[in-house]
Amino acid sequence: MENRRYRNEVPLKPGERIDDLERNGLGIIQKSGGFCFGMDAVLLSGFASVRKGGTAADLGTGTGIIPILLSAKTEGGAFYGVELQPEMAEMAGRSVELNALSDRVHIVCGDLRDRSLFPPHSFDTVTSNPPYMKAGSGLTNPGDGKALSRHEICCSLTDVCRAAAGLLKSGGRFFLVHRPQRLPEIFAGLSAERLEPKRMKLVHPFADREANMVLIEAVRDANPGLRVEKPVIVYESPGVYTKEILEVYGY
Amino acid sequence: MENRRYRNEVPLKPGERIDDLERNGLGIIQKSGGFCFGMDAVLLSGFASVRKGGTAADLGTGTGIIPILLSAKTEGGAFYGVELQPEMAEMAGRSVELNALSDRVHIVCGDLRDRSLFPPHSFDTVTSNPPYMKAGSGLTNPGDGKALSRHEICCSLTDVCRAAAGLLKSGGRFFLVHRPQRLPEIFAGLSAERLEPKRMKLVHPFADREANMVLIEAVRDANPGLRVEKPVIVYESPGVYTKEILEVYGY
Repeated sequence: MENRRYRNEVPLKPGERIDDLERNGLGIIQKSGGFCFGMDAVLLSGFASVRKGGTAADLGTGTGIIPILLSAKTEGGAFYGVELQPEMAEMAGRSVELNALSDRVHIVCGDLRDRSLFPPHSFDTVTSNPPYMKAGSGLTNPGDGKALSRHEICCSLTDVCRAAAGLLKSGGRFFLVHRPQRLPEIFAGLSAERLEPKRMKLVHPFADREANMVLIEAVRDANPGLRVEKPVIVYESPGVYTKEILEVYGY
Repeated sequence: MENRRYRNEVPLKPGERIDDLERNGLGIIQKSGGFCFGMDAVLLSGFASVRKGGTAADLGTGTGIIPILLSAKTEGGAFYGVELQPEMAEMAGRSVELNALSDRVHIVCGDLRDRSLFPPHSFDTVTSNPPYMKAGSGLTNPGDGKALSRHEICCSLTDVCRAAAGLLKSGGRFFLVHRPQRLPEIFAGLSAERLEPKRMKLVHPFADREANMVLIEAVRDANPGLRVEKPVIVYESPGVYTKEILEVYGY
């Protein structure tokens, strides 16, 4: 039934639902109890850019939220989402179909550490909302899909940076969302792959709280020089989003 | 004449003046046309901590502003300010005398790269407001004292981090103010000396502008894990300081 609101009708599996993205009539299939996209993916899509006709790869795409949002927001030519888990990749593929985006958005089931997935240095933009937690930290059930999405079981920060650098053209841009707690390690990982941090935005849940997310733009082979933009504040008051979140990020 | 307001009377040289710190009746001697302390030093003093009875060293102390402010703000036992330029060190020494702080604050004329200045690993706290600019960038007159204070002519970021690590006890704290533009390099320099960034605060001139200063606390031999605190906003509107700047930093 929900299907009728979207461009194409696609089959849903048991436990799946369609969430409306409230942007360009887009919807996304998610599984109740499975890993669902969060505000971090939406903020990263708002922070990232893809040039007109450019190519973009999203590493660990999960539901496919990032390439789907970027296809709406940018004039990029082709968007690829790489996802390791076959069920997740298949579900993301149906979300692409749901939104009639199959000509621009492509979901690839594969391991981002596999350098044969795409021709080297063929992308203008790479995005990633990788697992934030180190493998073994606070882990309860390593077998499930949510654990793979949240913990560095199948890919470390180093793997993600290496994959991004391998995919990007010289001068290409890597957009990453992560936890500020790991910022020194993130910069070291980027630097090791000649990805130079050029732009950063901290995300604070409230104006007077510590940052709980960081958005970073790194440029391959660029000279040093980081701009730290004004922070994003998520909530005006408990339960009330700030104007910026509603307007700029369309949350 | 101005001298009479302060605890001791000290001689002033031609071109020197006393600026009131508007805190605990403290004053500081500065030379018109020479390098004068800025808000960065005041913010660093507000950001830094020294434990009761602890020892603190300030690397490149200039006017001596940081040890003088820290002696007022903390219960630290002994504060050392290291300054390379003899005239500057001598002037800072007179500021210590002016404020009758000679029992707690000591100005040492020497090179922070000289590892024989102090016993190794003997400090609880190290602070530094080092030159921000790389040697050769936008440099006009390399012979003058202001150039030495602003450009990395006599000490690089690497030198400052190495000196801090050499002075600090294990678990000791290094407080640094620098430019956000160089953040990746700062983290790399700290990390190379086992100084782990644990706390960071960005300083934005206005709420909607990019950050132009960054305050960092790194702990020697600590485990990774950075907290990014709410940013400091300097101006409410042009020329009008925010409440935080006036109250917390007593600017």
